[in-house]
Amino acid sequence: MSYSILPLDRLTEQLERLPGIGRKSAARLAFHLLYMSDKDAKNFTDAFAEAREKIHECPVCCNLTDGEQCPVCGDPKRQQTVICVVEDPRDVLAIERTREYSGLYHVLHGTISPIDGRGPDQLRVKELLHRLSDESVTEVIMATNPTVEGDYTAMYLSRLLKPLGVKVTRLAYGIPVGGDLEYADEVTLSRSLEGRSEL
Amino acid sequence: MSYSILPLDRLTEQLERLPGIGRKSAARLAFHLLYMSDKDAKNFTDAFAEAREKIHECPVCCNLTDGEQCPVCGDPKRQQTVICVVEDPRDVLAIERTREYSGLYHVLHGTISPIDGRGPDQLRVKELLHRLSDESVTEVIMATNPTVEGDYTAMYLSRLLKPLGVKVTRLAYGIPVGGDLEYADEVTLSRSLEGRSEL
Repeated sequence: MSYSILPLDRLTEQLERLPGIGRKSAARLAFHLLYMSDKDAKNFTDAFAEAREKIHECPVCCNLTDGEQCPVCGDPKRQQTVICVVEDPRDVLAIERTREYSGLYHVLHGTISPIDGRGPDQLRVKELLHRLSDESVTEVIMATNPTVEGDYTAMYLSRLLKPLGVKVTRLAYGIPVGGDLEYADEVTLSRSLEGRSEL
Repeated sequence: MSYSILPLDRLTEQLERLPGIGRKSAARLAFHLLYMSDKDAKNFTDAFAEAREKIHECPVCCNLTDGEQCPVCGDPKRQQTVICVVEDPRDVLAIERTREYSGLYHVLHGTISPIDGRGPDQLRVKELLHRLSDESVTEVIMATNPTVEGDYTAMYLSRLLKPLGVKVTRLAYGIPVGGDLEYADEVTLSRSLEGRSEL
């Protein structure tokens, strides 16, 4: 004798599938969405539909954009000789926030992960090679995450790109600024030793 | 020089307005919604639209339902002489889970809260009075939350209902089962003393 409301259950179920949303949060969100004013509900669904409709990959760097090209590729002031390769559009935003990088990007949309059945063909590798056929690019920075898959992807790509005569570099690993040696894990610490630089 | 994608920002903004969703979660959800398959996106928006379209208040108890009446009001086996008054449809679900209550419900959809400008007129009080004009109801259980607003609402309603000759009761306050006296707050403990029963 459970008196559940089917459409509400279905909505809760859909919300539960979202990342980081558990059962209780999903129920809470479902009630919130239900009690929303019609105007707010319309704003919500409009934003959802608009984002899915207008956002696509930049034909050059594969980053997400709602324009013809992404703003970085369309900006002639960006340094055209360096490409920073990242896994995900969010990584572009993270690097842009540093305000230290003025080159271009290339978004792979994932990593090579044989366990999950993801090979190079599922990534935007072909598009990267196509960009390098233009001789103006002199350096490719591998900015994939410091994880097993990220490292493997960086290694794979560097082997692929080096024969093309382009310099391939990797982001530095080390102790985060403000971090504490005592609390750094062994792998990070040993990478930080390996990558030491002269003062 | 922030290279943001407007439709994505708008979606993130909408998600950030949901309860319990902070900035980072909103960004993460936005990307998830963006990368969803078309089928999943349709399921999501369909569930949202269906819930908002089909779910309405039961004309008797004001609980949410997608039927003509809610399943409790429509069930002749429920005890027709007792009404349990709750703040919110979720409270009905919580009480149903105990499998101990077989009477009817009345959902107020909120509490009286002068600070937030909510008076009795914003609640389903009129509907409750209308139900009590039928003489079959002998007891009304106030199951509003043990908060200042919940207590106040229960007091207000009990004063309104008692002249109608109906018995008005309140849920017992006390130490939660499995709880520890040592860790119980003073108010709960003193309420638990007040409400002591003979063994």
